[in-house]
Amino acid sequence: MKVLVQKFGGSSVADLECMKKVRAKVLDAVAQGYKVVVVLSARAGQTNKLVEMAYQWSDEPNPAEYDALLATGEQESIALFSMLLNDAGVKARSMVGYQVPVLTDNSYGSARIISIEAGHFLSELERFDVVVMAGFQGYSMENRITTLGRGGSDTSAVAIAAALSAEIGTVDCHIYTDVDGVYTTDPRMVPKATKIPKISYDEMLEMASMGAKVLQIRSVEFAKKYKVPVWVRSTFTNDEGTLVTQEDESMMESVMVSGVAFDKDQVRITILGVPDQPGVSAALFAPLADHEILVDMIVQKASREGITDMTYTVSHKDLKRALVYTEKVAEEIGAQGIEYDDQVAKVSVIGVGMRNHSGVAAIAFSALHKANINILMISTSEIKISCLIHANELEKAVRTLHTTFGLDGE
Amino acid sequence: MKVLVQKFGGSSVADLECMKKVRAKVLDAVAQGYKVVVVLSARAGQTNKLVEMAYQWSDEPNPAEYDALLATGEQESIALFSMLLNDAGVKARSMVGYQVPVLTDNSYGSARIISIEAGHFLSELERFDVVVMAGFQGYSMENRITTLGRGGSDTSAVAIAAALSAEIGTVDCHIYTDVDGVYTTDPRMVPKATKIPKISYDEMLEMASMGAKVLQIRSVEFAKKYKVPVWVRSTFTNDEGTLVTQEDESMMESVMVSGVAFDKDQVRITILGVPDQPGVSAALFAPLADHEILVDMIVQKASREGITDMTYTVSHKDLKRALVYTEKVAEEIGAQGIEYDDQVAKVSVIGVGMRNHSGVAAIAFSALHKANINILMISTSEIKISCLIHANELEKAVRTLHTTFGLDGE
Repeated sequence: MKVLVQKFGGSSVADLECMKKVRAKVLDAVAQGYKVVVVLSARAGQTNKLVEMAYQWSDEPNPAEYDALLATGEQESIALFSMLLNDAGVKARSMVGYQVPVLTDNSYGSARIISIEAGHFLSELERFDVVVMAGFQGYSMENRITTLGRGGSDTSAVAIAAALSAEIGTVDCHIYTDVDGVYTTDPRMVPKATKIPKISYDEMLEMASMGAKVLQIRSVEFAKKYKVPVWVRSTFTNDEGTLVTQEDESMMESVMVSGVAFDKDQVRITILGVPDQPGVSAALFAPLADHEILVDMIVQKASREGITDMTYTVSHKDLKRALVYTEKVAEEIGAQGIEYDDQVAKVSVIGVGMRNHSGVAAIAFSALHKANINILMISTSEIKISCLIHANELEKAVRTLHTTFGLDGE
Repeated sequence: MKVLVQKFGGSSVADLECMKKVRAKVLDAVAQGYKVVVVLSARAGQTNKLVEMAYQWSDEPNPAEYDALLATGEQESIALFSMLLNDAGVKARSMVGYQVPVLTDNSYGSARIISIEAGHFLSELERFDVVVMAGFQGYSMENRITTLGRGGSDTSAVAIAAALSAEIGTVDCHIYTDVDGVYTTDPRMVPKATKIPKISYDEMLEMASMGAKVLQIRSVEFAKKYKVPVWVRSTFTNDEGTLVTQEDESMMESVMVSGVAFDKDQVRITILGVPDQPGVSAALFAPLADHEILVDMIVQKASREGITDMTYTVSHKDLKRALVYTEKVAEEIGAQGIEYDDQVAKVSVIGVGMRNHSGVAAIAFSALHKANINILMISTSEIKISCLIHANELEKAVRTLHTTFGLDGE
């Protein structure tokens, strides 16, 4: 059996006209001899409407019932879409989370998939040409409806592809979005950005976490774990899109840097005059973690006379709370004071090629220096170099690095 | 375990304010020490909205997907209502058809309940104070969502009460409506109509089929089969309502007639000069049955010289089609012609007491005669006498019979 998974988001199935366009994509795949698994989100706006209703009913909606309510959104879209397919003479049926079943844990609102029963699903694929599956939702061992959290439909699609792959060999997963693939950087900022034909899971993870919001991070982690080939494609074109797949020799040889990502949502907080004693970092970051404040970059200045500065970044939404806890700790540990700067941004170059090519960092720093861009903080990983810079220099920095690493298109 | 089933219709849960009134009823039952099963319909208007959407998407929606779509209506109402209960400090959870599970056949749109798994339900009633169950919907052995047809929520409520009764002894079922019980006749027509405190299943079936649309007929049949005591009560008062239950001696002794029902939706069709031969009735009624035209009363005049008249009644909506098939048959069997009268109505007196009291029919006919009401057709059953009369005499006929059989209140 030749199976293809196609996932369409909420804006692709917003109304009847949109759904008809999506149907054309599915009919194409059927005509090519595929048994097709279509994974759908709720129609655009529907989930927000349900969330609004929940909060009209309750200031703090019961989490399990909240999920049961939200799950009606995909049930609606998959039933309507299956009607359209049947009208086109295709044998199709819908399946909500418990019908698959997609077994999850009990973390309502952000449930994790435990397993997907592929056997029953395959027998339904024998009886039907297309199975239209509800994204975003699952079913817990306690016989309750769960949801995977916003954007969870990507994860649903990759997960069903993974489950089917284990039974019948590699099943490709096509994620349809409103862009036609993954770009070397944001084309709205750099018009010379080019589409990347092939990218590794690790690079995609770095790109996604940096704000290239094409794929939900969890879905990429899932794809990586189960080696599911994921194609990012556009609902509105016939372009091949970008293949997200395992890293291979050819990829590592060809390019040092695959893309330049950036993140405007950064605030830098500095604690001045920190006594350089063991345990100081823990004292500072433990309360932030306890209050679920995500710290991104961390830098500790070289100590001078037993005194140092600690600098870290958080997102704008966490600034106020971060300042409260940081001030408290600063006082406790006898620091001289704190200051913050919300006019900063992060630029990163990403590429598995860095593993084999030394000097990528040096090239990046030198290019920024030549462009008169001041680097405020640096952090590096095996396949990424990130620099914090002044926000008003971000665009120049992205363009500079994009050109420097030979990513500019025509 | 002391269990009570409470069913509320769509208008009782239409919005937040309505649901809060319903919650008060449920909290009352909880305070009385009951574990409560609340059966809800979709919020008023929601099912119609979904039906409309289905027909926007498809001229002939796939029946299975149509049911999957409609089932979101109750899922919404039970999730919202469970939120309200949890906010009031009551441990509550929602259950849709497949979670119960309510096993049905595959007749999408009008599925029949095959069985309800009571064991799992009881264990949930041990863990929760209230289980809020979706009415109207079920789940087929083929792993598909089904619906029971309009008004099916009554049947859901009686069915769960029956299933639980089999395990833990009699479970009462309270059906909340916008009237406070079953009346001796329609109070809008006869202001002296009185509420019946207790009525047998059979009488209720006759009352319901005659247009006293308090309970869905199927639910009464279900209640009769499994001996579930059903209380018809008002959402808006604290009145005890009407108990629909098994016929007992006391009921049969006390009153001859329990109520007067009527039906304005009747058209009389007559085939004139029918040759009185074997097979003529079959020739006429078979095509009507084949085309799902429901025939109510049938009368055949005494034959004279091998020639007779056949008269029957159908509802207004079936008139056109009935005439087509009847004309065709009339020609085939060599009848003289057909005529119809749509200015007729049916009035019926109903009561299990008739079984023991002779002469009820005579009293009824004589009363109508004294009131100068012409009887066009008569049909009788063990507990019912129906007369077809001219439509403009209906109100007089109902009042006359209501008074004659001592049903008038203050």
